[in-house]
Amino acid sequence: MAIVTLLTDSGESDHYVAAIKARIISINPGIRIEDISHKIKPNDIAHAAFVLRAVFREFPKGTVHLVGVDAVGAKGDLPIALQLEDHFFVGADNGLFGLISDKTHQHLISLNSITTISTTFPERDIFAPAAVKLASGISLSDLGKPLPVFKKMIDRQVKATKKQITGSVVRVDGFGNLITNIPREAFEILSKEKVYTIQFGGEKFRRIHTDYHQVEEGECVILFNSLNMLEIGIFKGKASDLLGLAYDSVVTITFDE
Amino acid sequence: MAIVTLLTDSGESDHYVAAIKARIISINPGIRIEDISHKIKPNDIAHAAFVLRAVFREFPKGTVHLVGVDAVGAKGDLPIALQLEDHFFVGADNGLFGLISDKTHQHLISLNSITTISTTFPERDIFAPAAVKLASGISLSDLGKPLPVFKKMIDRQVKATKKQITGSVVRVDGFGNLITNIPREAFEILSKEKVYTIQFGGEKFRRIHTDYHQVEEGECVILFNSLNMLEIGIFKGKASDLLGLAYDSVVTITFDE
Amino acid sequence: MAIVTLLTDSGESDHYVAAIKARIISINPGIRIEDISHKIKPNDIAHAAFVLRAVFREFPKGTVHLVGVDAVGAKGDLPIALQLEDHFFVGADNGLFGLISDKTHQHLISLNSITTISTTFPERDIFAPAAVKLASGISLSDLGKPLPVFKKMIDRQVKATKKQITGSVVRVDGFGNLITNIPREAFEILSKEKVYTIQFGGEKFRRIHTDYHQVEEGECVILFNSLNMLEIGIFKGKASDLLGLAYDSVVTITFDE
Repeated sequence: MAIVTLLTDSGESDHYVAAIKARIISINPGIRIEDISHKIKPNDIAHAAFVLRAVFREFPKGTVHLVGVDAVGAKGDLPIALQLEDHFFVGADNGLFGLISDKTHQHLISLNSITTISTTFPERDIFAPAAVKLASGISLSDLGKPLPVFKKMIDRQVKATKKQITGSVVRVDGFGNLITNIPREAFEILSKEKVYTIQFGGEKFRRIHTDYHQVEEGECVILFNSLNMLEIGIFKGKASDLLGLAYDSVVTITFDE
Repeated sequence: MAIVTLLTDSGESDHYVAAIKARIISINPGIRIEDISHKIKPNDIAHAAFVLRAVFREFPKGTVHLVGVDAVGAKGDLPIALQLEDHFFVGADNGLFGLISDKTHQHLISLNSITTISTTFPERDIFAPAAVKLASGISLSDLGKPLPVFKKMIDRQVKATKKQITGSVVRVDGFGNLITNIPREAFEILSKEKVYTIQFGGEKFRRIHTDYHQVEEGECVILFNSLNMLEIGIFKGKASDLLGLAYDSVVTITFDE
Repeated sequence: MAIVTLLTDSGESDHYVAAIKARIISINPGIRIEDISHKIKPNDIAHAAFVLRAVFREFPKGTVHLVGVDAVGAKGDLPIALQLEDHFFVGADNGLFGLISDKTHQHLISLNSITTISTTFPERDIFAPAAVKLASGISLSDLGKPLPVFKKMIDRQVKATKKQITGSVVRVDGFGNLITNIPREAFEILSKEKVYTIQFGGEKFRRIHTDYHQVEEGECVILFNSLNMLEIGIFKGKASDLLGLAYDSVVTITFDE
């Protein structure tokens, strides 16, 4: 079945999301539409990229992801469509797609080359028709002119040495959990059987848990989450209120000699 | 495929929306249900009518729109169903349907004539079964007794003379954009090649843009939006916080002699 | 058609809900997914149980309800699946399922016995695959080892004597209506033609309405709602702001001798 997912910053009190869905259904009523989220903060590319990166691979290969976040972009940003890790993406070339995967895209086109539409609502007028075509099996090369590259933004990088891993909080989720960009893999390669200290704000911890139940309610739990990223939480509590950590806060793991 | 859209003021923390959907599915599991919004402010007919007017025509003709906003209505308001611009609508006769189109309805019936249900949850108990029947191809005349008229409310009117168009803000959207009731058509007929001034609050502007990229981030952008209505925004900002405008504020366009 | 409903406390700004849906679709793209709510307050079992109890019977028998609320549970809580009133439920054995029905479950299994997955995201990794299997017709006994009982919590009880019914507010809904646990049936058995007084906070009322239109806008309306539970509201207003009542407040009905 052809699936189109929607990820927007349009909220749910307006007609915008329904207009995108209606356009898709009007072109091809057989398409299954799945919401990823419409609660991305307006124009918050980092938020949207985090969510999309975290979930797109869960969908079947060939799924089309329509991204209506900062859809108008900056001056000169084109509407684009691309294939990446066997998924399709349609949206503005505003830097977002460079943040969702470390792999190179398979195909990339500019949608501007086949549309002359001037619109203040590209999600409905440009992205939706392109998404339907892709979901219906039309190939990218029939939808626009090849583009060599899309816009990249410099993402927050993890620094890893034999002595220390330095990362940062890349997402405060709805539960108040603090998700960092420190991957399980880097930790496992470097930690071996060494003693280590996790440090953030004024706090120091000596243990990474494997299960929430290793702590009591209200205690700090540090674990590699379902994305295999280091996450700091308060079991049944709101870590973001209690630990003095926020988006972009530094988190380090230091290994003893 | 039979489509029923839902537009309610029920929010998403309760069982109400799911109960309506479950009722529809239980009667006919083949129906495609699409949410328009459940974030209409309680009993806010103007908000609901704006959203419905903005989006219903995007859906395929024959779509059934179930409207659970101020569903209990005032004393004497009947549950009704109507056909309008080849779409079907089911809801309370509370004045909302008079605000969504300037065309005359094609058919109108009272659902009260075939139901004796006394209910505090008409969306589930009256509107949902009627919507399913309509979506399944049963005709309006089989669902109730013809009604000559539905309740009309006086909508905010635009005043247009050769010298000036006077309108007002009819919706502050989730981005903080201020959408007015001034249509592109009236402006185009009256402006010709005249110089004009747009005025609201203490502000005066001399240009209507055609593209967000004609202004820099943080600047005021004034354009005819995807609904062809005059809209005032701050590019990548929140106009409602910055321009001293709110729902119902007056906006004028004055033409130079 | 196979239906899986989702009820979670995950909110809508993250990837969690989409990840659960994507997992379901990836296993069986023919399944119809319906959201009950994702706006349950984190780990709020009472809120989730109220909503689920209020709506699950509206869905067709055989529907599978995936409950991702307090999904990690307390130490020792197992992932379970059960059949109850001809519906299926999958979630954590955290006490929630004991609150949704007064009937005894038909079948109950532990999902832990067939999975060795250690996960911080059981909704996606354990509940979703189990829900798909149930929706696809696989029987509970093929999914895990029978369990004799699930965890029960003591629910707030209504006390009813010939002289008085004493209940409490069990849910403040999105409109600000106060829904109590006093059932219509108890009232009808005890009231006969007696004069009665409804009392809460400092207020006393002598009438239970059958219709919102028996009061004027802004007045207090007391009726048995669509769940046949006593509900206290302000017609077109927000009772929770005006009546000094909140979750857990006591409400009594006293019958005159």
